[in-house]
Amino acid sequence: MIKVIIAGYKGRMGSTAVNMVLEQEDFELVGVLDPFAKEKEAFGVPVFTDKSELVGFSADVWVDFTQPSVAFENTKFALENGFRPVIGTTGFTEEQIAELINLSQEKEIGGLIAPNFALGAVLLMQFSKQAAKYFPDVEIIELHHDKKKDAPSGTAVKTAELIAEVRVEHHQGADDEEESIAGARGAEFEGMRIHSVRLPGLVAHQEVLFGSAGEGLTLRHDSYDRVSFMTGVALGIREVVKVHELKYGLEHFLEL
Amino acid sequence: MIKVIIAGYKGRMGSTAVNMVLEQEDFELVGVLDPFAKEKEAFGVPVFTDKSELVGFSADVWVDFTQPSVAFENTKFALENGFRPVIGTTGFTEEQIAELINLSQEKEIGGLIAPNFALGAVLLMQFSKQAAKYFPDVEIIELHHDKKKDAPSGTAVKTAELIAEVRVEHHQGADDEEESIAGARGAEFEGMRIHSVRLPGLVAHQEVLFGSAGEGLTLRHDSYDRVSFMTGVALGIREVVKVHELKYGLEHFLEL
Amino acid sequence: MIKVIIAGYKGRMGSTAVNMVLEQEDFELVGVLDPFAKEKEAFGVPVFTDKSELVGFSADVWVDFTQPSVAFENTKFALENGFRPVIGTTGFTEEQIAELINLSQEKEIGGLIAPNFALGAVLLMQFSKQAAKYFPDVEIIELHHDKKKDAPSGTAVKTAELIAEVRVEHHQGADDEEESIAGARGAEFEGMRIHSVRLPGLVAHQEVLFGSAGEGLTLRHDSYDRVSFMTGVALGIREVVKVHELKYGLEHFLEL
Amino acid sequence: MIKVIIAGYKGRMGSTAVNMVLEQEDFELVGVLDPFAKEKEAFGVPVFTDKSELVGFSADVWVDFTQPSVAFENTKFALENGFRPVIGTTGFTEEQIAELINLSQEKEIGGLIAPNFALGAVLLMQFSKQAAKYFPDVEIIELHHDKKKDAPSGTAVKTAELIAEVRVEHHQGADDEEESIAGARGAEFEGMRIHSVRLPGLVAHQEVLFGSAGEGLTLRHDSYDRVSFMTGVALGIREVVKVHELKYGLEHFLEL
Repeated sequence: MIKVIIAGYKGRMGSTAVNMVLEQEDFELVGVLDPFAKEKEAFGVPVFTDKSELVGFSADVWVDFTQPSVAFENTKFALENGFRPVIGTTGFTEEQIAELINLSQEKEIGGLIAPNFALGAVLLMQFSKQAAKYFPDVEIIELHHDKKKDAPSGTAVKTAELIAEVRVEHHQGADDEEESIAGARGAEFEGMRIHSVRLPGLVAHQEVLFGSAGEGLTLRHDSYDRVSFMTGVALGIREVVKVHELKYGLEHFLEL
Repeated sequence: MIKVIIAGYKGRMGSTAVNMVLEQEDFELVGVLDPFAKEKEAFGVPVFTDKSELVGFSADVWVDFTQPSVAFENTKFALENGFRPVIGTTGFTEEQIAELINLSQEKEIGGLIAPNFALGAVLLMQFSKQAAKYFPDVEIIELHHDKKKDAPSGTAVKTAELIAEVRVEHHQGADDEEESIAGARGAEFEGMRIHSVRLPGLVAHQEVLFGSAGEGLTLRHDSYDRVSFMTGVALGIREVVKVHELKYGLEHFLEL
Repeated sequence: MIKVIIAGYKGRMGSTAVNMVLEQEDFELVGVLDPFAKEKEAFGVPVFTDKSELVGFSADVWVDFTQPSVAFENTKFALENGFRPVIGTTGFTEEQIAELINLSQEKEIGGLIAPNFALGAVLLMQFSKQAAKYFPDVEIIELHHDKKKDAPSGTAVKTAELIAEVRVEHHQGADDEEESIAGARGAEFEGMRIHSVRLPGLVAHQEVLFGSAGEGLTLRHDSYDRVSFMTGVALGIREVVKVHELKYGLEHFLEL
Repeated sequence: MIKVIIAGYKGRMGSTAVNMVLEQEDFELVGVLDPFAKEKEAFGVPVFTDKSELVGFSADVWVDFTQPSVAFENTKFALENGFRPVIGTTGFTEEQIAELINLSQEKEIGGLIAPNFALGAVLLMQFSKQAAKYFPDVEIIELHHDKKKDAPSGTAVKTAELIAEVRVEHHQGADDEEESIAGARGAEFEGMRIHSVRLPGLVAHQEVLFGSAGEGLTLRHDSYDRVSFMTGVALGIREVVKVHELKYGLEHFLEL
């Protein structure tokens, strides 16, 4: 049984994480933390409002869905107190990540900071990078609900960056192609093209399309609900207890 | 049995049409025309090199896949000689079409000029127009091989035009959306967005995506081979013998 | 302004309908009914617990998401009291529907009983029927969450029935095809094939695939959330006030 | 420059391979072999009708698209004469493959026997195997033209076998699911489900659908034309010159 503390358990992601931990047979919820908590006990375990109360507490893993402002200190605290951190909060700087990795190596304790816990999205990015070695012709279509402000999506740009690491850079499309309406060919990223669709009803979806003479390979991820992140959190909990340093990115725990 | 003449039978589309006519049980090939023909007989029927040789000839339908420069005169000739024209050649002006419709009404003879004989593409456009009445949120993705020069495709623009006839015009996407890379949101057409994908291996494909609260409706056409046009040509041949004027557009012969 | 009563407003669908009515500018919620209600007023309108209290009440439309056991009596009551019924409850017998249509004609009052209010699903079925006239080769893939017990889905069977009305019946696939594992070719329905996919994460999705020489036409509906039914309910409310008899099926109010 | 011999150059695949080799800048066609050849020279290189004429000939790679009856002897001949074999002919027994691998190790010469040279299809299978570790819920849909006799396709079964190597075996779908029409849930393979769609117009396509709470991952391969095999053949030619034993399966030369 892996003993788990959840920090930020009153937030949307934190409370989803509580449910997930309670459902897994090999996990045991041992404590929850939230500065906004008023009860002393929840889900049959003690409630803490300040991390200092957890010094000396017995747990294996510290799951953190708190605020960017406290996540760094929380992660440091977890490492120093022997709790392996599994961190879903975003906003760490490169320096902070480096410092936390160093600290984990010093303490010889595993950990995970993951900007994206959606296992399917992480696999899509990794497969895209693998495929791009052999299929240098690639375009990305990302589709989101029509309240989304930014285009292209962060995941699409991240995917394009990963592909660019291995793809022979070249201009996608005919040399003499012309747009009769500007923007038809999408956003250009190192010669690749990214297209952003926005429609009500959609949630978060991404397709990476590879083409080669006579064939096509299409990889698609559909995200319908934030509960999807929990598969990745569970994977993280199971993996951090096996390793001896903190990793940045869920892909480090995937055997691909 | 419907007796068919094929003009331009030595071209790619014309020869494909010959094969189609020979395969249909209710069609009878009775003559073929091509100025470049050298043989006197082909497929067991007489070969003509000049349309004047066909005055007084007995046939029901004149299928034409010739050059834009002669198609208008050919169509007029067909109508005047009692052959119902089924014309796949493009490049008619609006005046020419109006003149030919008038002539057909005068002669009380059916006919068809179709800029697009791909039945699936025509259905896609008609369904898109129908759906847009109820789903005003719509984006188009068209996908073609990477030798294509123009973007968006003519079919995508035509589809958008048909949709615009019935759709309440509005800007697609969030009011405050921003492109971090120009072009991400595609080409704008009356508030709709059109995205053009170009990859080797692709032939000609189009998706029309409709979204509404909690649901999506996607219509897709895949064109793999020009043989697909023949389903529409066969439909045209069967329909022109039943009507008494020339129509522009295959959709006029569809019961939707 | 169309004045709307909602019966069954405390249920999941009924409360979703209340929200929809409150959001539409041309609708006015004037009363709500539910035998389980305890409050006297809700959403600023009077609450009723028995339909008899509504005799003489002023309203245009009666939206009903109650139980099958009371829906027939409710619909009759609505017609008799001048409220145009828009009924989402299922389980009417053919005799009951015929009786209600007769009553509506007698009273010269519009109405709608719809077994499916998902506009996209209704359009998918109608388009499939239209396309099948021209594309007799068709297979259906329906995809649902893995808690679903029945396969194929009711919507898939209904779609196949509509297609069968216009499709020339024939066996789909090669004459000499053989399944090396039973079931590979799916369920047979009048020569068509229906395939049922069940996976966690999926909600309710259906694809109708048409094929012809050199081309394919694919129609897909994705249902992510029950809120999708409300587009159809709103359409029903707007249409029943324009007609003078009750219709069975949302498709009767679509201009296709 | 890699010097290439092509055996079976008059067949469909062989002649496609000739074109591919001529187009690549780092390949040099040095000889072609076919027992049915009548010319002495073709594509500017000598034509052979019997492999014995090639003893002592200078070449790096032997590409073979001949008949199953001669492919084993040809591969042995190639290995013994210092030509690295790249073999697309199928029908080798396990014993033959083992013998050829042994021979290649003895001669310290690279080689490749690939039952499937479609790079996209091979990637699809490998990615499916990788994903199945993390997404144990999976169904396969394969779609082919309607002349195909067998269902499910060999590639679909092969994909299922690869997935089964890593997937925790379990029954896909609800425990109490019932088919109202037999076959709806497809073919069962170790608890997985495989669905075979057959339609005119289709060529060869496969989708592997993974589902998990709140998300889906879909991998799709579309094969439109046999020219697609040539990307894999080219890859094989470039890789066999770098290794010192024969491999069975293109995946051994992919860095995934």
